[in-house]
Amino acid sequence: MSIGMKILNCTPRALKRATACRLCRANPFPSFGARFKSGPYGYIQAKSLFFSKNGEPEDVLKLHTHSISPTLPPSSILVRALAAPINPADINTIQGTYGSKPTFTSLLGTPEPSIVPGNEGVFEVLSAADQSSTLQPGDWVIPAVSQIGTWRTHAVFGEKELLKIDKTGLTAIQAATVSVNPCSAYRILRNYGPSSGLKTGIPARPLELGSGEWFIQNGANSGVGRAAIQLAKLWGLRSINVIRERASDEETTALRKELQDLGADVVVTETEFLSREWRDQLASITRGGREQIGLGLNCVGGKSATAIARSLGQGATMVSYGGMSKQPVLLPVGLLIFKDIRFVGFWLSKWNEKDVVGRQHMINDILSMTKNGQLVDVPTKEISWEWETTEDTLRNAVQHGLDGFQKGKGLLVFGDT
Amino acid sequence: MSIGMKILNCTPRALKRATACRLCRANPFPSFGARFKSGPYGYIQAKSLFFSKNGEPEDVLKLHTHSISPTLPPSSILVRALAAPINPADINTIQGTYGSKPTFTSLLGTPEPSIVPGNEGVFEVLSAADQSSTLQPGDWVIPAVSQIGTWRTHAVFGEKELLKIDKTGLTAIQAATVSVNPCSAYRILRNYGPSSGLKTGIPARPLELGSGEWFIQNGANSGVGRAAIQLAKLWGLRSINVIRERASDEETTALRKELQDLGADVVVTETEFLSREWRDQLASITRGGREQIGLGLNCVGGKSATAIARSLGQGATMVSYGGMSKQPVLLPVGLLIFKDIRFVGFWLSKWNEKDVVGRQHMINDILSMTKNGQLVDVPTKEISWEWETTEDTLRNAVQHGLDGFQKGKGLLVFGDT
Repeated sequence: MSIGMKILNCTPRALKRATACRLCRANPFPSFGARFKSGPYGYIQAKSLFFSKNGEPEDVLKLHTHSISPTLPPSSILVRALAAPINPADINTIQGTYGSKPTFTSLLGTPEPSIVPGNEGVFEVLSAADQSSTLQPGDWVIPAVSQIGTWRTHAVFGEKELLKIDKTGLTAIQAATVSVNPCSAYRILRNYGPSSGLKTGIPARPLELGSGEWFIQNGANSGVGRAAIQLAKLWGLRSINVIRERASDEETTALRKELQDLGADVVVTETEFLSREWRDQLASITRGGREQIGLGLNCVGGKSATAIARSLGQGATMVSYGGMSKQPVLLPVGLLIFKDIRFVGFWLSKWNEKDVVGRQHMINDILSMTKNGQLVDVPTKEISWEWETTEDTLRNAVQHGLDGFQKGKGLLVFGDT
Repeated sequence: MSIGMKILNCTPRALKRATACRLCRANPFPSFGARFKSGPYGYIQAKSLFFSKNGEPEDVLKLHTHSISPTLPPSSILVRALAAPINPADINTIQGTYGSKPTFTSLLGTPEPSIVPGNEGVFEVLSAADQSSTLQPGDWVIPAVSQIGTWRTHAVFGEKELLKIDKTGLTAIQAATVSVNPCSAYRILRNYGPSSGLKTGIPARPLELGSGEWFIQNGANSGVGRAAIQLAKLWGLRSINVIRERASDEETTALRKELQDLGADVVVTETEFLSREWRDQLASITRGGREQIGLGLNCVGGKSATAIARSLGQGATMVSYGGMSKQPVLLPVGLLIFKDIRFVGFWLSKWNEKDVVGRQHMINDILSMTKNGQLVDVPTKEISWEWETTEDTLRNAVQHGLDGFQKGKGLLVFGDT
């Protein structure tokens, strides 16, 4: 997604020494640290993770060192990275299994056409091509478009590819993690819900904020799940939350407690959820069906998705936004026909494209809740990316960025590169 | 559904002789044939199929002979049956697997509370309780509500449970088969279609009549399928029709020809449809994806439903209205999330309840197309129900009413009982 820019690769000798190459001797941005190797032409040294073919991150991900010309193309912005999460969609993009496949390009100057992964992150503006730009050095920006490629120390983006955020009172981690998981939870809870007895079978209304209406979700301890719990609490909705058992009972109890502290009304383990007793438990939660569950969130698939669907009330909607189990969603026909449950998918990228202004409002709303302490920081597993950090270290960190994600998602945190 | 009425069972001796019982000596409706056994009280002899517990029709279906008092409750209508089809939903109702379960009542006077099956059919009005009724002797009526119980020679219904149709130019078979299958096809084609790039993920628009937009359906030779083919042709839509292979190639070719004659644009066998070549064939039909398929109709489930879903274009809707294979619908998560396909069920009964006026217009529209010869009669396998027809014969006919349904659906045709 980064727009055309002039790139010169540094000499191997210069790279080996980790000093300026012959083209990079002076530093045009002295305030941004000594690591900006620059010369008479003001070239910036940068590093990018990239892949030139699809596969497992540990097999295909490489680190590229290159130079960025300080002569920026019109309407472009030079930025340095502060933090960038590792999301499941990023891994799927590298594997080639994601819904949209970015194009391999020669922009980065890699031996073969390549893609820089990373869909989410926060950058600091170093300079703008146009004096009149609304973006000024020191501003924080997040991607305004999908698949911008955030896993790199520096980049030149088109001004329209970036969205400025008010950094006051925010940490880089909060800013880096705002635009995927909390936004998904926000959109789904605000836009989907049961059919309200309308004339045709298709339209459905959103859940009514402040009404205490129920929704149910699996993968409740995921980033989206945790955001949904907190937003529901803030918005006057009630949540039933399905989690997988942890390695020990103590850990399960601790997680249950953690989600309850976030505002979860009901937390149930997957074993309880898939057992015969769940029906009675559900009847008691919904007061014998007097309070129907109008919305289900599914990020698992397989049996868990079917059980979510079976828990829903007449005319409800089940929104699938992920498929962690890699099992298809399996729907008894009766749920479709007689219970009038509708099954839809949710893809944040599409929403963002369709409703740019709505997205800005949503981001501001979420950031304001974050600043107010109404949204708790998502647990992260920080991976430090310093100038010296090796390709092996980064590749390994990405490959395992999702392991044990319940304890925190992988987050690349950039040093003063 | 029939309203309260006074019923007297005839004496066994009278039944054995198939003559009037001691309460039934005169015939208050002489114009309706000698079979109306009646006496001083004007009681009508009637026969009803019924079941008092769920199970296979051959196990639980029984024939009850009873008398109907000519003194009708206010706002009620006495009718005699002309024809009533055997639909899959009727069998499922008897089996107890249907979505709505009618209540076993004592209205019929059977030894145990019972239900009269049959959801569709046409009756002739014999008399109305109120002189001012809009229904007059000789009028034809079809059920205005679900589960009215059509498998009986005579009945007393509430006036509001019946919908008068203009019988001019119609056969009883045409009138008896108008309200389930053609209505389902009509509703689905007129109300469901792809998302039209609207802001939220849920709303979808109907197919645009006259545009040549594509839909795809399995079970294309079913009653709904045949109606959909013909309606699509009349309305300027195009259909891709999946049929199961017949016993011989000749029969398959004949069926293919038959559906093409009805107006099918493309007919494909399930084997072709589930093969690897289908993707290329589909690309050629849709001109390399330039003409996306916006709507899928599924009455099969299992692999066939998944293949229908995979054939659909971005943002399309798949409507399930049946599950003949008894296999659940299996959805790869990517179809939900990345292709934004939405999956809904269609239940005509619910539509009829929600939109009574719309249903009347639809019935009139379909009957007018039938009279114009624009809709071909659905193939039927007629089962004659005369006064003498035995319980065994009827039970057996119902049990096998759906066998070889591609050659015609079972239809009870009443003699001058």
